Amino acid sequence: MSTSTHSNDREEGLEFQPKFDASGLLTCVATDAATGEVLMVAHMNDEALRKTIASGEAWYFSRSCKRLWRKGESSGHTQRVVEMRMDCDQDAIWIRVEQTGAACHTGRRSCFYRAVTSADGDTRLSFVDADRLFDPDTVYRK
Amino acid sequence: MSTSTHSNDREEGLEFQPKFDASGLLTCVATDAATGEVLMVAHMNDEALRKTIASGEAWYFSRSCKRLWRKGESSGHTQRVVEMRMDCDQDAIWIRVEQTGAACHTGRRSCFYRAVTSADGDTRLSFVDADRLFDPDTVYRK
Repeated sequence: MSTSTHSNDREEGLEFQPKFDASGLLTCVATDAATGEVLMVAHMNDEALRKTIASGEAWYFSRSCKRLWRKGESSGHTQRVVEMRMDCDQDAIWIRVEQTGAACHTGRRSCFYRAVTSADGDTRLSFVDADRLFDPDTVYRK
Repeated sequence: MSTSTHSNDREEGLEFQPKFDASGLLTCVATDAATGEVLMVAHMNDEALRKTIASGEAWYFSRSCKRLWRKGESSGHTQRVVEMRMDCDQDAIWIRVEQTGAACHTGRRSCFYRAVTSADGDTRLSFVDADRLFDPDTVYRK
């Protein structure tokens, strides 16, 4: 196959060149390594990315709290990284993880516990896989 | 279980209240409905979200081209939405799709065709599932 005019080092090379956005962040998608379920979407800054790679545990950067955050540091619900993938333009990371307990701060296994449904132009949400695995009042009230 | 102090309408309600960022965008993760593989991470503005819901085909907003974009409009590699899920704070969407052909503009099935590996403090990428299903030179040179 001919060399693509769309190719460049960042897309076709094997050099690790994360492309952080204006806020210094990458988007990270965490999926359950066993089931493929999307557990959460969060962000990593350079330090979170380095700590994740070095430790094999997921670290994120909280945009709301503006601080580095080891997943599970409060709840104990850590994420062990089984595999990390980089996307084509190196501005998004996919991690396949072994999730201890639940990923969502609301107590659900996944943050995506509601389906979007539409009928007659009316769009609503409906609960799917929305059972709580923990009570956030108990876990976070420390 | 007691009502969580962390709960609010956006997290616990069934009203569709997408929370767009300062640029008017949501993050969208598209996974293969059959395999669970993450195909791509992209963005939707309000119009892309509405068109996706109304048509059952994925529409996105291109940040680089600053325009609405129907997935596959150039390549023919459309995404039929099997299920759409909203996350806890309604700023990220997960769509499970039937992908025609390949999701990535480089010709790969998924944008995540490189694994991140680290040894002795040196982080590199390595190709995984990186076979091209189409030649981008041929598909996009129209």
